[in-house]
Amino acid sequence: MEQEQLIRVRMHDMQQQFSTVLLKYGFTAVKAETLSQVFAENSLDGVYTHGVNRFSRFIQYVQQGHVQKDNEPSLVHAFGVIEQWNGNGGPGILNALQCTERAMAIATGNGIGMVGLANTNHWMRGGTYGWHAAKKGFALISWTNTISVMPSWGATEAKLGNNPLVFAIPYHDEAIVLDMAMSQFSYGKMEMKAMRGESLEVPGGFDAQGNVTTDAAAILASKRPMPIGYWKGAALALLLDVFAAILSAGQATKAISASAVETNVSQVFIAIDLSKLHNYSSIAAALHSIVEDYKTASALGDGALRYPGEGVVRTRKENLEKGIPVDKEVWENIQNL
Amino acid sequence: MEQEQLIRVRMHDMQQQFSTVLLKYGFTAVKAETLSQVFAENSLDGVYTHGVNRFSRFIQYVQQGHVQKDNEPSLVHAFGVIEQWNGNGGPGILNALQCTERAMAIATGNGIGMVGLANTNHWMRGGTYGWHAAKKGFALISWTNTISVMPSWGATEAKLGNNPLVFAIPYHDEAIVLDMAMSQFSYGKMEMKAMRGESLEVPGGFDAQGNVTTDAAAILASKRPMPIGYWKGAALALLLDVFAAILSAGQATKAISASAVETNVSQVFIAIDLSKLHNYSSIAAALHSIVEDYKTASALGDGALRYPGEGVVRTRKENLEKGIPVDKEVWENIQNL
Repeated sequence: MEQEQLIRVRMHDMQQQFSTVLLKYGFTAVKAETLSQVFAENSLDGVYTHGVNRFSRFIQYVQQGHVQKDNEPSLVHAFGVIEQWNGNGGPGILNALQCTERAMAIATGNGIGMVGLANTNHWMRGGTYGWHAAKKGFALISWTNTISVMPSWGATEAKLGNNPLVFAIPYHDEAIVLDMAMSQFSYGKMEMKAMRGESLEVPGGFDAQGNVTTDAAAILASKRPMPIGYWKGAALALLLDVFAAILSAGQATKAISASAVETNVSQVFIAIDLSKLHNYSSIAAALHSIVEDYKTASALGDGALRYPGEGVVRTRKENLEKGIPVDKEVWENIQNL
Repeated sequence: MEQEQLIRVRMHDMQQQFSTVLLKYGFTAVKAETLSQVFAENSLDGVYTHGVNRFSRFIQYVQQGHVQKDNEPSLVHAFGVIEQWNGNGGPGILNALQCTERAMAIATGNGIGMVGLANTNHWMRGGTYGWHAAKKGFALISWTNTISVMPSWGATEAKLGNNPLVFAIPYHDEAIVLDMAMSQFSYGKMEMKAMRGESLEVPGGFDAQGNVTTDAAAILASKRPMPIGYWKGAALALLLDVFAAILSAGQATKAISASAVETNVSQVFIAIDLSKLHNYSSIAAALHSIVEDYKTASALGDGALRYPGEGVVRTRKENLEKGIPVDKEVWENIQNL
């Protein structure tokens, strides 16, 4: 594999390029605007795997009909502060944003709003919805199920999704946003490590002989990535799948995995309107105190302890200034779409 | 350390004994009944560390005034489907049960109910509240923060709680109940392993030199247990603490850890009334399908893949039949309280 050639693309130019392609493939101007912004923002924030590096595949899924570009979510059922929506196979980002907004709207009147979203597509980066809600003053707890990618503890067969989980809360002008999958490493990360011939920082799965290993290529071959915390992350992945499927009245990982391509996933969005809580005015100070304590623990190495989301803000700033780093070939492919 | 001598105590006798002690220490009959039942049920279900083995310490905390035996929770704030309660330093089990019930009551009318509980004491076993809600048809998502017990990733100083997280949902006549702390192993488990001179099944922390190790004694000495999934569990522990403190308007791990004894913790209870969801009648079948698929994955060893809560039911049945196993000395100490 040849060396990557990184170029830098300005945020504005990247979004323009995405928008041009989306319009060409028949998206409405409004949808192209939102989708191009999210794909570009994911890249700006350093989540390239679910930004610029994933854009061509998104277009491919549209062409192949896995993503129904014109379909919009429809309300299936509502009771109290719960709404259950059908994503109707539409673009995952648009469906997830709309359901995040619905959860926020319900929370505004009731403190909390919960939306279950069935039959939707890959939301790309879970953090998108956490940042979106947090920037508007809401806490968000959200997760998605996925196609099966890892075995449960004691199993050799991958029956569990990695089911990313998001916790987000406003913090000063930014947010604390945790966006974590239940596998120790993503396939994307392992593929990169294998390509570069580098070891994983910590054991990331099993080799063909069933030994725990840091060899990404061996894990990719065995298809046995490690759940976080061994049996614990496997159990949490199962429960996140169960709750996603039940709360959305949608598909569980089992049914999703019956298709070769990941589609018709299930998601949950729980928004909390922090302004409706007791002592709202003291929340910012309480958060500041927690984070300051966290960051001042005795530490190894350079001692820089970061809270979830802190690195994102740094990367965002750098990429805004210098442009977003993109593999030259990836960018050329997008320009040729 | 001498060998444990296990005896078996009948569920009914254990509860009676707990009740006798609680009445002697001034608990009302109603409170003694509930507390003795939960301590005995935790033991019956095999969670001895937060049942019979913890009972004497609970009484000690009452005597020392860390647990205010007569105090009851009071409503601080309510908006929509959110209630925030002050536990007023009362018994953690009673406070948590009452708040679980409140969340369920709110959910009955609104689909979801969320209760934040501040200034409460150790709830013993998180699964108690998961089973309680699930047995009545509710799904429950709940967690507590704790005193600091583990370092964040990259830190050497323990500033994070292990912050157990509960996901529970009814399953056939029982429930799927996940009750997991964010540390790979509890201090109780590591102490037992160290006492027996056994290695941990997987790396559970760091030794004094900073090496990852399965040596429980070394981890107890360094006070650096491992978060599940390294940086991931550390990050989730931080977010659970943040959400517990903010949603309850209570203390975060930082403030809790300023006391030598763990008290005034913060908890969250989110109940969902499943009967209010779309296609409620099909939920049982959907769950059955997910669990059956999970259990039939190709597996190592004896191939027995268990879902969270499955082992509990088995242990409960065995302990009901044979009596609950208790260390003779532990039981004698309780009889002498």
